[in-house]
Amino acid sequence: MDLDPARLDALAAVVEEGSFEAAARRLLVTPSAVSQRVKALEQQAGQVLVLRSRPCRPTAAGRALVRLAGQISTLRAEAVREVAGTGDPLRLPVAVNADSLSTWFPTALVGLPEHVLVELHREDQDHSAELLRDGAVMAAVTADARAVQGCRVRPLGSMRYLAVAAPSFHERWFGGRGGGPAGLAAGLRVAPHLTFNRKDGLQDRFVERVLRAPAGPRPVHYVPSSSAFVELVEAGLGWGMVPENAASALVAAGALVALDDAGLDVPLYWQHWRIDAPSLTDLSARVERAASASLRPPDRRRG
Amino acid sequence: MDLDPARLDALAAVVEEGSFEAAARRLLVTPSAVSQRVKALEQQAGQVLVLRSRPCRPTAAGRALVRLAGQISTLRAEAVREVAGTGDPLRLPVAVNADSLSTWFPTALVGLPEHVLVELHREDQDHSAELLRDGAVMAAVTADARAVQGCRVRPLGSMRYLAVAAPSFHERWFGGRGGGPAGLAAGLRVAPHLTFNRKDGLQDRFVERVLRAPAGPRPVHYVPSSSAFVELVEAGLGWGMVPENAASALVAAGALVALDDAGLDVPLYWQHWRIDAPSLTDLSARVERAASASLRPPDRRRG
Repeated sequence: MDLDPARLDALAAVVEEGSFEAAARRLLVTPSAVSQRVKALEQQAGQVLVLRSRPCRPTAAGRALVRLAGQISTLRAEAVREVAGTGDPLRLPVAVNADSLSTWFPTALVGLPEHVLVELHREDQDHSAELLRDGAVMAAVTADARAVQGCRVRPLGSMRYLAVAAPSFHERWFGGRGGGPAGLAAGLRVAPHLTFNRKDGLQDRFVERVLRAPAGPRPVHYVPSSSAFVELVEAGLGWGMVPENAASALVAAGALVALDDAGLDVPLYWQHWRIDAPSLTDLSARVERAASASLRPPDRRRG
Repeated sequence: MDLDPARLDALAAVVEEGSFEAAARRLLVTPSAVSQRVKALEQQAGQVLVLRSRPCRPTAAGRALVRLAGQISTLRAEAVREVAGTGDPLRLPVAVNADSLSTWFPTALVGLPEHVLVELHREDQDHSAELLRDGAVMAAVTADARAVQGCRVRPLGSMRYLAVAAPSFHERWFGGRGGGPAGLAAGLRVAPHLTFNRKDGLQDRFVERVLRAPAGPRPVHYVPSSSAFVELVEAGLGWGMVPENAASALVAAGALVALDDAGLDVPLYWQHWRIDAPSLTDLSARVERAASASLRPPDRRRG
């Protein structure tokens, strides 16, 4: 099957922009030209590649071809740059979970080569895998060790979270330093806590580890911003799991109290397309360096 | 039309949970009971209220009834609390734009009454209006002065953004302090900049004001995290518009340079359901106090 690059680009533009009209505007051709290219590709593939919905969504086969289109255009841009010594800037779309984005990930981008432009997506776990599959991002920081099809996975190390609360909150709900394990267990059943959003299971995992029983319903505030989360735990709205990098200085300063010493480790992974594009290889090396400087080393038995 | 509360709750649960099965699990009834209640409501209304899609979506009439269900259940919970002196915690779902959430908004929640639980949604403009219309949130901080149907709007004041860059970046692309207006205009046409996401038009607005011409395509990095945005502007990845509260200390310390003195003001508004629920009235007062302490006063000609 000889896949024409212009046809692949038309498909990718339809999926990225969401409609044939918007794709046509981006490619500077007529909508009917876009439609013809996609139809020709569908005849070659012998199946529907994109659902004509609002927005247009790729089928499973369509996804594979959108990813291929992105890979080819990246490799082409890199080759042009190598041969000509110059060229269009290269866009690297990357999905990053919120806590990484607000802590260690930005350091990976310091001193990025000037021709590389990043497009960061702040996404949770499930959606990142979908973006990789759809070809919407080339790489992702995820908490899932399972490789998305067509991707390579490497362990980055673990982000440690500490269960913390304001001192006055700790005193009131957990009996302060004198409360001990019984005070902690009793408090966790009833004290209000913060959670990032409905998909954030960290607080429940902590409670289940301490109680050795299902967490059950408890009062919860949803605060989907890493900085607002820490600020509101400090203000005594509830207890919550805060990344160690952000929490430990506040604990040392007496602004927060750790509910126990153990914390919770979340292993993170770097998933990226299997292509030999120098800019992606360079980004991977940067991400691994930044991760090793601030995460706990990966568990090599699993890595 | 006598709208049965159990039927309204069934409709609201289907829309919030996305399916009849999940709604049934939440309400502790069978899926067929949920289906019967919704159908009975649709017969009363004489029209379809919810599209049986995945996830289920309300029709325009369905939205109005979902909002009504939320309003009734809030008023009921508040009345029970007033009569009995105690009761279930009250959940207040609120949409807040990212920059407000990472700067002034959390202070509005300090010392919140213990029976009130917040569910914050970090949403951009367009989606906030949709969440208000759908009844998924009771209130929102938005940049849109137009009232969503059934909502009251009050001006909160303006968030001022400064166009800033790292000193070395400023030197290289804008000719530093000696570059003057010509250096700024020339630099803005070619220098890489940061933007929050594809919907963030602040940087383009700044460029258009300086150049008095359409901004045109320029190299851009997308960084959808308020803290990562500031950090990467500081690291010299590009220039960007940063809220004055975050930028001015860094400018004073010499870590950032302001590209001009004027900045850009974005007026913010508080939209909330028109119901007399004490907890919502209290939250509104808190939000207005927090806003007046950190935003620039609203323009009374428009307020």
